[in-house]
Amino acid sequence: MIECSVCHSTLELETVGGKTVSRAYDRHRHQVSSKTRFLNVALVVGDCILVGLQPILVYTTKVDGGFKFSPVSVNFLTEAVKVFLAIVMLLLQARHKKVGEKSLLSFSTIAQAARNNVLLAVPAFLYAINNYLKFIMQLYFNPATVKMLSNLKVFVIALLLKIIMKRRFSIIQWEALALLLIGISVNQLRSLPEGTSALGLPVATGAYLYTLIFVTVPSLASVFNEYALKSQYDTSIYHQNLFLYGYGAIFNFLGIVITAMFKGPSSFDILQGHSKATMLLICNNAAQGILSSFFFKYADTILKKYSSTVATIFTGLASAALFGHTLTMNFILGISIVFISMHQFFSPLSKVKDEPKNISLESVDSPKNKR
Amino acid sequence: MIECSVCHSTLELETVGGKTVSRAYDRHRHQVSSKTRFLNVALVVGDCILVGLQPILVYTTKVDGGFKFSPVSVNFLTEAVKVFLAIVMLLLQARHKKVGEKSLLSFSTIAQAARNNVLLAVPAFLYAINNYLKFIMQLYFNPATVKMLSNLKVFVIALLLKIIMKRRFSIIQWEALALLLIGISVNQLRSLPEGTSALGLPVATGAYLYTLIFVTVPSLASVFNEYALKSQYDTSIYHQNLFLYGYGAIFNFLGIVITAMFKGPSSFDILQGHSKATMLLICNNAAQGILSSFFFKYADTILKKYSSTVATIFTGLASAALFGHTLTMNFILGISIVFISMHQFFSPLSKVKDEPKNISLESVDSPKNKR
Repeated sequence: MIECSVCHSTLELETVGGKTVSRAYDRHRHQVSSKTRFLNVALVVGDCILVGLQPILVYTTKVDGGFKFSPVSVNFLTEAVKVFLAIVMLLLQARHKKVGEKSLLSFSTIAQAARNNVLLAVPAFLYAINNYLKFIMQLYFNPATVKMLSNLKVFVIALLLKIIMKRRFSIIQWEALALLLIGISVNQLRSLPEGTSALGLPVATGAYLYTLIFVTVPSLASVFNEYALKSQYDTSIYHQNLFLYGYGAIFNFLGIVITAMFKGPSSFDILQGHSKATMLLICNNAAQGILSSFFFKYADTILKKYSSTVATIFTGLASAALFGHTLTMNFILGISIVFISMHQFFSPLSKVKDEPKNISLESVDSPKNKR
Repeated sequence: MIECSVCHSTLELETVGGKTVSRAYDRHRHQVSSKTRFLNVALVVGDCILVGLQPILVYTTKVDGGFKFSPVSVNFLTEAVKVFLAIVMLLLQARHKKVGEKSLLSFSTIAQAARNNVLLAVPAFLYAINNYLKFIMQLYFNPATVKMLSNLKVFVIALLLKIIMKRRFSIIQWEALALLLIGISVNQLRSLPEGTSALGLPVATGAYLYTLIFVTVPSLASVFNEYALKSQYDTSIYHQNLFLYGYGAIFNFLGIVITAMFKGPSSFDILQGHSKATMLLICNNAAQGILSSFFFKYADTILKKYSSTVATIFTGLASAALFGHTLTMNFILGISIVFISMHQFFSPLSKVKDEPKNISLESVDSPKNKR
């Protein structure tokens, strides 16, 4: 038990210390500076551009309504590009080494970092499964239905953050997440195909399990990724990226091997059916992946989610401005809800009540705080 | 300037004392008991029943899509029924007089109350105008459009409460009101007729002024009514009802006289075109009016607004259950937004920050608090 020097109220140390993911991350978390805010804005803007390009690129890669190339090959190539980008970024970063710092390229540093970050194999495995699922869903389900189902991820992510990252959300924040879900749905209502049922989801009974997997796997991957990156906060993100995408490449290569076992050796021809368009899509995917790592390490999965939604909104506004579409009432009401939700989620008013106490008590390296 | 005995922070008395409508009302306001909560629930339930019956009764009174009777006559009859009900309630209440209390029926008490409550003539006048406008709007505008326009009242009421009643709303509360507006609109989107413009309102340029009046007059009437009732908080509500509806009857009688001057003496035949159905509608209107007074005096205009919305939701649910309608996605999303809005508006989390300080400082009859 310790006493606050200002309000003289006693607090159990267990509850304060029990909620930490890593000490280095906690230190970072309480140094909210203008630098962090700038980083967040930069992440959101970058994400908006990449996510905004995605539907255009996917559209250009479709031939006769389907894909000519194997989805597994796209995933493997994406991981390969990510590993390549991660190596380039690591090399660039290593040149900016300050005097007295250990080189990022020394074998001992890399070996130590690799040992500490084996946990990254878990999200890499989940992502490999999810990438495959994503293509399957787009081929066999209606795109509008896929979109509607994807909205449910917001809630699953929040639930997983609560369980895995010990994050606490206030009631207002839970409501903000519900509003995000509702806002996106209102926006999508008009695009739903005719003849869908009252609840808008024409899913067969068997498809419910499929939906559950489709929603849970990527959410679990993101939250586990956030956990793995933050729990080894002292490891350079450039090392972490290298390991994450290295594991990713291995798992996707295994995917190709398994496909080859079932469909014959032609699956090894990973460049089959690819064009310039698919290469652009792959580079965009890779860049989004790299950006996600920064989101998960320095911000969080929820900000990533809001960022994607804002990207969709800007795409809508841009297409309205460029092609002279009129904005539907659904779009206007939907984005109003999303922006209110966003303000409520990040507003200091809605933060969990005892958060400020934590900050004032967890002074860095105070001997009292050690567990 | 006074100092808080707990946190030792100084507060300007002007800002605390400046926000009062009447001292008696302030005393009541800070005695939030389970009794008040029970009263609020009873008000909402009663309102739900009466408002829920309204569209059914209006439907039954229509003959060939219009009304056979003069709208002014309905309003006058409604005011007459209200005066009658107010007198009955006053007589019933007077029988429960405690020993030592002045009788509610003594001439001096009534005369004094009448002098203090002349302000009630203002809302009575505004209501008389509004009742007439309401019928006009229903006859010449599309009902769906009228509904959509009515939603804007929420904001106008909040703005007027801020100006007239010095109410303060937190950002979360303003957002909750915006969500209420959006939620109702999402629910109504499907019922909009085909061919309405992107913003859903097929209004001619000249109709904007009409709309402004249609939205402002009833809002002003409600807020002014709340002000008038609360500023004379010590006067019995049974007296206040009597005066309010007395003025109402006078203004509506003047309306009949004016109509008679333009359309000839047949307008004096106030029972012309009436049926059992219209009589039921009139009684419902009168009961709603009496209930409103209790809302405005003991709760507020915003609670009245939420109450009407909840009534609409229950009507929708009831008609779905009774007539086997499927609930549309719009309805489900709309009511989700409304319920989140309601929770956020009344949640203690979203209250304006210095409200608790006010309560602790404004101890009843403290000489320091006198202005």
